[in-house]
Amino acid sequence: MSKDDQIAFESALFMRAAAVETELRRILDARPLTGEIARPERLMAAMRHGVLNGGKRLRPFLVMESAALFSADNDATLRVAAALECVHCYSLIHDDLPAMDDDDLRRGQPTVHKAFDEATAILAGDALLTLAFDIIADEATALPAERRVALVLALSRAAGAGGMVGGQMLDLEAERNRPDEAGIITLQAMKTGALIRFACEAGAIVAGAPPADRERLAEFGSAIGLAFQLADDLLDLTADAKQMGKATNKDAAAGKATLAALHGPDWARGQLHGLIDQAHALLEPYGEEAELLKEAATFVATRNS
Amino acid sequence: MSKDDQIAFESALFMRAAAVETELRRILDARPLTGEIARPERLMAAMRHGVLNGGKRLRPFLVMESAALFSADNDATLRVAAALECVHCYSLIHDDLPAMDDDDLRRGQPTVHKAFDEATAILAGDALLTLAFDIIADEATALPAERRVALVLALSRAAGAGGMVGGQMLDLEAERNRPDEAGIITLQAMKTGALIRFACEAGAIVAGAPPADRERLAEFGSAIGLAFQLADDLLDLTADAKQMGKATNKDAAAGKATLAALHGPDWARGQLHGLIDQAHALLEPYGEEAELLKEAATFVATRNS
Repeated sequence: MSKDDQIAFESALFMRAAAVETELRRILDARPLTGEIARPERLMAAMRHGVLNGGKRLRPFLVMESAALFSADNDATLRVAAALECVHCYSLIHDDLPAMDDDDLRRGQPTVHKAFDEATAILAGDALLTLAFDIIADEATALPAERRVALVLALSRAAGAGGMVGGQMLDLEAERNRPDEAGIITLQAMKTGALIRFACEAGAIVAGAPPADRERLAEFGSAIGLAFQLADDLLDLTADAKQMGKATNKDAAAGKATLAALHGPDWARGQLHGLIDQAHALLEPYGEEAELLKEAATFVATRNS
Repeated sequence: MSKDDQIAFESALFMRAAAVETELRRILDARPLTGEIARPERLMAAMRHGVLNGGKRLRPFLVMESAALFSADNDATLRVAAALECVHCYSLIHDDLPAMDDDDLRRGQPTVHKAFDEATAILAGDALLTLAFDIIADEATALPAERRVALVLALSRAAGAGGMVGGQMLDLEAERNRPDEAGIITLQAMKTGALIRFACEAGAIVAGAPPADRERLAEFGSAIGLAFQLADDLLDLTADAKQMGKATNKDAAAGKATLAALHGPDWARGQLHGLIDQAHALLEPYGEEAELLKEAATFVATRNS
């Protein structure tokens, strides 16, 4: 993409991130809601630590831009975007635990179990996952009940045993029983792909768009989910730790196979170009309106951190 | 309760437990559903280990008997009961982790992190929590979308930072900063009370009962939630390990204050009688139909294991 396009995209990404950060802060600072008894301060602090961390908020961006294609309600979209980010952040908190990836740093800050303790990190993750469904189901997400329940269902499928959590399980097993190419593709479609696919699909659900549009956006999400993971693997293969702000070459060190490692960086770059083309083609019907989403696809595939 | 009543109640409890066990097994044995990519076998095995453990299924029983008061749809009720049991079992799996209560045994069997490993136990818990919302939101739970979304909301409030998970956080902190009586009451209302309250309320939601009935059942749930915890504390104070099938006096050993320990066993028994009376009074409007629920209150307050 051109330098100007890139600046326009990154400024849009930054603005959407600020909006979702404000919404997340509001939700996590709220007093106990109807049906809640009290919100233990240490738990809420750990949840805030895991969520309000200056992330790029790529998934919320995808929700918001997909929703914009269909002129969905802004407030409802923002809440669904915030809910999805809660799920993403919970998964990072649990992934970082000593029993899992055992990471001390995330975005240059101590991980939740380092800043607090392991038990608090487990509970903060649990509470964030639960909160995501609370946010969507709440009447404050001013959507017909049919759409709220469709969002709950799609998110639970994307995040559960047949999606993200299942992918994390396959990833842990991959250190022992090195999966073949098909196995790696399944693993990645689940571990990182499912939630990105949901992000793009969610905008169409919020808007009550026809099933064909919902499916098209979901396919777009799958394409950039693949690109996201491939770009990540490529970075892990080629970048240094300073660029990434986290340890690199961890995959190879852990004996984890990636498609980029299997076929080499040149193959990976070729695949990435193909995925960008595919993603852009899926958005053709939406014309100009889809410009930022197209740039998101390029960004995801070509990012260097 | 009379010997005959007790036998009738325990046989009803056993029959409901068998029904929910069958439903849980069916759900956990299902092939990947729409929107799922694959279900990793090791993860599913860990989930089954944590769920299909021959528990008493008290919470599902409360859902089913509450629903029966309002002639709710049986299949939908069973699914909601199964979803709630998934949440209960996820909480046990995470509570048992080394970083939390560090328990090796549950109902005489190795805990999930012992039978599998810690990472798998964390993920199995995460997946069960997610699955609970999937089960409720799915169209197979043949209820109007309004009721499904109301169930998602009530469950997420009962299970999240302002309910069960928050209570677990307070419980961990209680070892350090011994809470006063008000603090203990809040802790227990959250840790064990919130989910039992939801169990009783859920039946009314499934049936689409009027708000006044929903509130009455929720209050009944709060009363027996308190009784449940008080009976547990009393057992911890007075029973031996053989009776309980797990380590006893752990609360005192961990320096955790309980109301039973604070005021003594006689006071606790007096309170339990008061709570049974209160619970029974709340069910008066439902006459004969509420007989098993009344007996559930007595059972919860007087159980010796």
